[in-house]
Amino acid sequence: MPDPVILGTIGLDTIETPFGKRERILGGSAVYASFAASFFAKPGMVSIAGNDLPNKYEELLKNKGIDLAGVERRGKTFAWEGYYEYDMSEAYKDAQYLFLANVDPEIQLTVHSQLRPKLTILDTMNFWIESKKDILIKAIGKADILIINDGEARMLFGTPHLVKAAKEALTLGPAYIIIKKGEHGALLFSKGRIFSAPGYPLEDLIDPTGCGDTFGGAIVGWLAKTKDHSEQNLRKAIVYASALASFNAQDFSLNRMKALSMGDIDERVQSIRKMREF
Amino acid sequence: MPDPVILGTIGLDTIETPFGKRERILGGSAVYASFAASFFAKPGMVSIAGNDLPNKYEELLKNKGIDLAGVERRGKTFAWEGYYEYDMSEAYKDAQYLFLANVDPEIQLTVHSQLRPKLTILDTMNFWIESKKDILIKAIGKADILIINDGEARMLFGTPHLVKAAKEALTLGPAYIIIKKGEHGALLFSKGRIFSAPGYPLEDLIDPTGCGDTFGGAIVGWLAKTKDHSEQNLRKAIVYASALASFNAQDFSLNRMKALSMGDIDERVQSIRKMREF
Repeated sequence: MPDPVILGTIGLDTIETPFGKRERILGGSAVYASFAASFFAKPGMVSIAGNDLPNKYEELLKNKGIDLAGVERRGKTFAWEGYYEYDMSEAYKDAQYLFLANVDPEIQLTVHSQLRPKLTILDTMNFWIESKKDILIKAIGKADILIINDGEARMLFGTPHLVKAAKEALTLGPAYIIIKKGEHGALLFSKGRIFSAPGYPLEDLIDPTGCGDTFGGAIVGWLAKTKDHSEQNLRKAIVYASALASFNAQDFSLNRMKALSMGDIDERVQSIRKMREF
Repeated sequence: MPDPVILGTIGLDTIETPFGKRERILGGSAVYASFAASFFAKPGMVSIAGNDLPNKYEELLKNKGIDLAGVERRGKTFAWEGYYEYDMSEAYKDAQYLFLANVDPEIQLTVHSQLRPKLTILDTMNFWIESKKDILIKAIGKADILIINDGEARMLFGTPHLVKAAKEALTLGPAYIIIKKGEHGALLFSKGRIFSAPGYPLEDLIDPTGCGDTFGGAIVGWLAKTKDHSEQNLRKAIVYASALASFNAQDFSLNRMKALSMGDIDERVQSIRKMREF
């Protein structure tokens, strides 16, 4: 049975960085998140893929044990119209972990309402903060863990202070707020407690696309694997997620992640551990 | 005997933040750095103070055990003309620890040449990178530890990658490079090793002026106290320095630091330790 369920986009990205240009490479929040989660669990994707999605990309996901029963094929990639009447695949009805990656908060609410997850993680971005703030606040209210980046936390809560933003976010419902700070790592806030996870300093950053989704996916994968919702275990999940996100930035698309072994990941976690000792 | 010796400015700052405006309050890199160092050691200041510096400020420094024999009084604050012929006060000749805070790198070189310090720390800023890069590079070559903020490291070494910038910096002479990242903490680089110190998340940040100087001063003070130049001890120094810098940001001028006890500092270091555990 697939668990966690991951809602998000499947995309064909054209990306240009100082290190090169790539056209129509596999991307999208559900793709990065599911791929990261697959190191720890057997994720099921809820998404829409265009008929133009090359078969080799579907194979790449399936070969990592990612379930695609929740992926609808229609028109062109990113055609989400009408998705508000989504009907959850029977295959996913018993999933206990849900990651609502960055999509329209109305769709996040729809998908959430069709599962009875033990634990829901929600990510979002500035576009929804600006265009659908009220619905987004409602969706955040359904989540146990909110993941948001620092700039968006400041925007959503109207304060430059991350600690204040996190306190506000905690009043909306989630028991945990994770603020992503890119290369500077992440902060985990719960009532009265803060965990600071370092970023892994990269010399060979190539493309950070998908790092946030990789991070969220790794967390939900880790929790689905361990079934331990304690803050202590969530700290560990965040460090594993940081390690995976740092690998993801070392190449375009899934290129670095698809060559990764659990040994590589454990080794990087070990490096992060040593990097913090004093 | 005063040790460390701290070269830097004494200033009367007028500061406006969202939390208020203050006029002609005590500031300057030597002031913040010496005050921070005084928690661990007995610093001697090398600086120029204008005749307009109120006596109460001088008293505040003296009462913390800061030696002012190296402070010249002349004209108005910040009148550094002619300082290139500086003659080190006899009182400081035997000092073993030197912090060259952010001033003209020619003056940093002059003061360094008049001491035989066991360990020299150098800080700088964008103004000198733009106006006196060659002399600055020479001054960095005299330092054992370079402290620089992230934006300036990128500027000085012409790369967006901090790891690359730090590697370049290590080729100039220093055995350690510390990159300050403001609220995101600091990174310590030595050959093949990285230490990542978290920032202490503040809810009540009032004024970050002087945090970088506080940070550097605390490090040189800690090293002068412990006389242990190992990387392990430098990591500890950085965490104490982060703690002091976080206190400094909680009020204007020296207002928060002057009310601090060693117990307060130890407590914050303990919080930082817990914040990083996983």
